[in-house]
Amino acid sequence: MPGRTARRRVLRVTLPGDGRPGGSTGRADFLASEEPLGIRVDGTALTMTMRTPGDDLELAAGFLVSEAVVRSPEDIAEIKLCDGTACGHADHNGMGNIADVALAPGVIVTPGARRNFLTTSACGICGKASIEDICVLPHALLAADEARFAPEMLAALPDRLRDAQRVFSRTGGLHAAGLFTADGELIIVREDVGRHNAVDKVVGWALLGGRLPLTGCVLLVSGRASFELVQKAILAGIPLLAAVSAPSSLAVDLAEQAGLTLVGFLRGPSMNVYTGAHRLSAGAC
Amino acid sequence: MPGRTARRRVLRVTLPGDGRPGGSTGRADFLASEEPLGIRVDGTALTMTMRTPGDDLELAAGFLVSEAVVRSPEDIAEIKLCDGTACGHADHNGMGNIADVALAPGVIVTPGARRNFLTTSACGICGKASIEDICVLPHALLAADEARFAPEMLAALPDRLRDAQRVFSRTGGLHAAGLFTADGELIIVREDVGRHNAVDKVVGWALLGGRLPLTGCVLLVSGRASFELVQKAILAGIPLLAAVSAPSSLAVDLAEQAGLTLVGFLRGPSMNVYTGAHRLSAGAC
Repeated sequence: MPGRTARRRVLRVTLPGDGRPGGSTGRADFLASEEPLGIRVDGTALTMTMRTPGDDLELAAGFLVSEAVVRSPEDIAEIKLCDGTACGHADHNGMGNIADVALAPGVIVTPGARRNFLTTSACGICGKASIEDICVLPHALLAADEARFAPEMLAALPDRLRDAQRVFSRTGGLHAAGLFTADGELIIVREDVGRHNAVDKVVGWALLGGRLPLTGCVLLVSGRASFELVQKAILAGIPLLAAVSAPSSLAVDLAEQAGLTLVGFLRGPSMNVYTGAHRLSAGAC
Repeated sequence: MPGRTARRRVLRVTLPGDGRPGGSTGRADFLASEEPLGIRVDGTALTMTMRTPGDDLELAAGFLVSEAVVRSPEDIAEIKLCDGTACGHADHNGMGNIADVALAPGVIVTPGARRNFLTTSACGICGKASIEDICVLPHALLAADEARFAPEMLAALPDRLRDAQRVFSRTGGLHAAGLFTADGELIIVREDVGRHNAVDKVVGWALLGGRLPLTGCVLLVSGRASFELVQKAILAGIPLLAAVSAPSSLAVDLAEQAGLTLVGFLRGPSMNVYTGAHRLSAGAC
């Protein structure tokens, strides 16, 4: 398996100032690895993503959840990294950058959000983009989730996520997604150069372990909350998505429609609650 | 045209502490707009991206540069937002979320990096991903660019970029890409919820204005430097890409191969030079 980090030479340049002499020094530095992962379903190429190697099967499985292709581990008959036996490339040495998925009988690939956008109509959303047009969600899943979350618990999560980011601490270059219980206990953290991939890895881990839907859980992402991240949380049955940074307009609109609690700017002692504030338990609210 | 920002209600929650009472207040907040933009080439849907509305034609044009479809403004016969006249949807009111591009005779869409990855071979890169396999670059374009850049000039750019980010200042939720001269003068800045889109908007602006290749220029991005951003810079003929945050391993490898100068962690008085250090002029180096 390719590594999560890679060493490269770097010239560290510092300008003179404040009594400090300027200069430059060469050294080896750790970078976050970025490599392509192809996802092949029933022998057909479905997508390719630039990702940080590691947890690749979880990434592929989570992607299929996010595209509403699978919902339970039984929907996947087999998932493995291409080892060369199928294609005759015996020199692969197990360092696969393609995940091969065989779906269970009756499970089919339906056009996902992005592909659906342009392939189902000639000009369907031109000038009037609506969530319905680009969303793979069949309906609001989360309204019935009665979990409640304490703001004090939420405020403690960013530090816990950062503490669990092993690769970031070496490279400074990775997004993270952390899954927590309603009491703030860390369940799992995944890192990736792509924030969507980090979430897919978490969701895929849950799918393969038979843990979906993630009722009563919190998903914290290290960056912003986009439409797609909200969609991924909803499809995984997560009632609360928190982001360290800002959400987009469409992220808020989709969260509202689906009954997701969306928290942004979760920093220090404060946070912004954009939707689903009823899930924040008493105290500050 | 849809707006770059959108107002949404938010509940601002602050925990008690340090003698400060906790509480929550409702207010209206500005968010970065996120909407889909479809790019249609010669009547065929090519891609869809989630973007912040604005500069949409530049985004579409820049995307086509990044995919190595076009290289000069003459390669595009016509580019416009779908206004409903072609599809008969007269109710569009000019608020187009689809860009229609007509290529000049003889210009064709070749498979871009991502599509190429899985469609040109059944298992071509499995286990041995190489830059050549996923790269749309015909050859190294930049080696001949003899521009030189002063580290002092580079160190001043992040503040200039931030000062020019009008939408970020209202929303806190946007990536930015800024194009500068070798003397550090800001040429243009573009913002987007997607960092790739911000770069595409800059490159598309340059293409449509007949300014490609961007010899002697600096491109500064507000976040990390991925493989794809490096590829976009190279295809636009930009000799120096600087990022406020970290590059990935593949970004460094591609920059090295193409002769691009790649600077990361450009913060305060220091920076990391990963490739092409010969372009940094004397002084600190």
